[in-house]
Amino acid sequence: MTLAPVLQKIDATLPEAIDRLIDLLRIPSISTDAAYRPDCARAADWLVADLAALGFDASSRPTPGHPMVVAHGGSGFGTHLLFYGHYDVQPVDPLSLWTRDPFDPAIEETAKGRILRGRGASDDKGQLMTFIEACRAWKAVHGTLPGKLTIFLEGEEESGSPSLIPFLKANAEELHADVALICDTGLFESRAPAITTMLRGLLGEELTIHAATRDLHSGMYGGLAQNPIHILSKILAGLHDAEGRVQVPGFYDGVTELSDELRSQWQNLAFDHARFLGDVGLSVPAGEQDRTPLEKLWSRPTAEVNGIWGGYTGDGFKTVLPGEAHAKVSFRLVGKQDPFQLRENFRAWVEAQLPADCTVEWKGHGNSPASVMSIDHPAFAACRTALTEEWGIPAAYVGAGGSIPVAGYFKTYLGMDAILMGFAKDDDQIHSPNEKYDLDSFHKGIRCWARVLAKLA
Amino acid sequence: MTLAPVLQKIDATLPEAIDRLIDLLRIPSISTDAAYRPDCARAADWLVADLAALGFDASSRPTPGHPMVVAHGGSGFGTHLLFYGHYDVQPVDPLSLWTRDPFDPAIEETAKGRILRGRGASDDKGQLMTFIEACRAWKAVHGTLPGKLTIFLEGEEESGSPSLIPFLKANAEELHADVALICDTGLFESRAPAITTMLRGLLGEELTIHAATRDLHSGMYGGLAQNPIHILSKILAGLHDAEGRVQVPGFYDGVTELSDELRSQWQNLAFDHARFLGDVGLSVPAGEQDRTPLEKLWSRPTAEVNGIWGGYTGDGFKTVLPGEAHAKVSFRLVGKQDPFQLRENFRAWVEAQLPADCTVEWKGHGNSPASVMSIDHPAFAACRTALTEEWGIPAAYVGAGGSIPVAGYFKTYLGMDAILMGFAKDDDQIHSPNEKYDLDSFHKGIRCWARVLAKLA
Repeated sequence: MTLAPVLQKIDATLPEAIDRLIDLLRIPSISTDAAYRPDCARAADWLVADLAALGFDASSRPTPGHPMVVAHGGSGFGTHLLFYGHYDVQPVDPLSLWTRDPFDPAIEETAKGRILRGRGASDDKGQLMTFIEACRAWKAVHGTLPGKLTIFLEGEEESGSPSLIPFLKANAEELHADVALICDTGLFESRAPAITTMLRGLLGEELTIHAATRDLHSGMYGGLAQNPIHILSKILAGLHDAEGRVQVPGFYDGVTELSDELRSQWQNLAFDHARFLGDVGLSVPAGEQDRTPLEKLWSRPTAEVNGIWGGYTGDGFKTVLPGEAHAKVSFRLVGKQDPFQLRENFRAWVEAQLPADCTVEWKGHGNSPASVMSIDHPAFAACRTALTEEWGIPAAYVGAGGSIPVAGYFKTYLGMDAILMGFAKDDDQIHSPNEKYDLDSFHKGIRCWARVLAKLA
Repeated sequence: MTLAPVLQKIDATLPEAIDRLIDLLRIPSISTDAAYRPDCARAADWLVADLAALGFDASSRPTPGHPMVVAHGGSGFGTHLLFYGHYDVQPVDPLSLWTRDPFDPAIEETAKGRILRGRGASDDKGQLMTFIEACRAWKAVHGTLPGKLTIFLEGEEESGSPSLIPFLKANAEELHADVALICDTGLFESRAPAITTMLRGLLGEELTIHAATRDLHSGMYGGLAQNPIHILSKILAGLHDAEGRVQVPGFYDGVTELSDELRSQWQNLAFDHARFLGDVGLSVPAGEQDRTPLEKLWSRPTAEVNGIWGGYTGDGFKTVLPGEAHAKVSFRLVGKQDPFQLRENFRAWVEAQLPADCTVEWKGHGNSPASVMSIDHPAFAACRTALTEEWGIPAAYVGAGGSIPVAGYFKTYLGMDAILMGFAKDDDQIHSPNEKYDLDSFHKGIRCWARVLAKLA
């Protein structure tokens, strides 16, 4: 099958592809907030209808949480590919910092080129649509889908994927393919195409420190009654020592050092951490003082407080001595760190620090070990070539600080390696106000998938 | 003028007095939240109308914040009394912990007697109405008010009283009287009548730690970017040492030790701190380990975090590395501690601890030094006798942990001593969900003021 007319079709129909993406972005599919449950179902249905129109046998599959979209299409003796993306998005707070309604996306002209601004534009609706648009252009030119394809889209990626493992287990035979493609990552330093072969895992924990059975008046009780915000602050302050090392006992068990080869490859990337931090108003690398910036981001474990709250947080002042205080804490995991063992160690470490009159209540929020991909399957080389051809820059194998647990699950439950490649840029502001996706990323991304399909189908 | 028929009138008309208080409690006059501004004005107007009906020359006086109510009435050569209370109330969050709508009060029968539940029932609408009801009964029986009275009701007590000092300065001549009565305190251990002669001062501070210019993805930046929640936790964790002593430099400057006489008087009070803490689910005194419980509450300064927030605090989990984190901190002051000097010391202490890439933003929330009353004016003895007669228990001179800055301002700006007496109980849950006022306190309180008026008018 020839590639050139497909690329021409992609170029000629880009405006329609953007319009379709805008339609999908208008659906506020925030998976972590139960209020948006109907919207998640609506996003799934939108994708099923779009895939069915392309000739896929597509369906929305119910789960105890949000539905999975599964679509099968095409045929042939080439590589059977499973493509994964997620249609759910992060919450949008603080809404006041957005320059526009996050669910009324629009194209903006910027100094760096044309962008599409809206929640999910980059993470991950814009990225998953690059693959679907490549299939659409192929079908329009050649009349058929390019080989045997399975498309698998999740709706709970931003909320810990509670239904994913049960679904993979229950549908392992149907979902098995030769290799998986996962489009939820970015360009290295916003410029060089990259395949991510190393991903940090994640453990999320939420704790509530309880003291008095009710909120107290700080004048009437202050100085005599235990203040749970003080206790929580002391515990969180002890999470790191002065050199940035995490203090939970056993935390570094299973952490492996970088191979000399990968260390030298990463040094060649010439990561500009000053620019990376400068883009968000920072200048000095925090964290472990004896590690390089790329190590900190890709191959070292971390502990971060993602949220804290307690007492009076509204306008003005209230002299309350609260009965409880809360925090959400996440750990990024590497190598063979065991999230279940860490959960146990963390909880025991906190509990050992509680003074009289304080108790702690726990909520677990998802956990996944780190993933390291094998790159033996020939599809890795094919994808690397496609990326290199489309961008005109050699594609690199890199690590990623964020967790994409599905890559590990595909290996464990479906016996497949996964190729993680995506087109997001560092300033896409994913998970933040004013998320955007460069139209250049969207356009090149579609073209790149067409190249991959031409090689593997 | 005879007292007995007034007391009889009070007993006979208690149901109507309760109904009037319920009317006033229905007005949600939350002064700290701008959304309730019209309700504060409505509460002031309600009081003006009620006082005018009793023959007072009453008016609502505008301020840059909420209005002041000032009423003059009666005549005679006895003691000219100024009565102070406040008609504003605390916020009601968390609303989910209330057993009823906080602004739809009702009488409840409990094992400890009849109570009226609703926001402001005890702090301070129920208390201020005890005095007005005593005046009403006197007028009904004797046809006139009992001597020369000024009633002065504030609407910003729960939000730092920003308009109070300017108003006192501008109206010093009009508001001057022989002695002030302030009804915003309670019974000692919920049983013994008491006059508070020692009040802690207050300094309120709000700080925001800024790091990155926007919220970041903790996977993409975690381990390399500064987390302002970590910085805030470390600072707050260092506020006290292991023995509970506050670590801000100069904090204990101006703190005076208790006189032997007062120490012995307080020992005789046989304060049951186990019961006091046990009522709210606690058992072990926190704070300074070398001080007695009553010292901690009445004569020692404290530092308490009243609120903390940052990052994602909603349902589920969001792996955000926030750009800022916030806290509200208050200090209770004693002796000659200078709130302005402390503010300066606290801010310098925080700023000295900020790492690279972090800045702090400040908001000041009111400040007042501690007050120690002189008890020379004969009205003190008269009030003590009235309390002793009404309760049948000797009234004590006590301290108070909370701040009632107006007592100090009356001394400074109007040259008057203030007699602080009130009828609240420890379990009134002021500033907390499910605030209530015992109808026994309301009834005896009205009768007690009638006794005071008979002695002084």
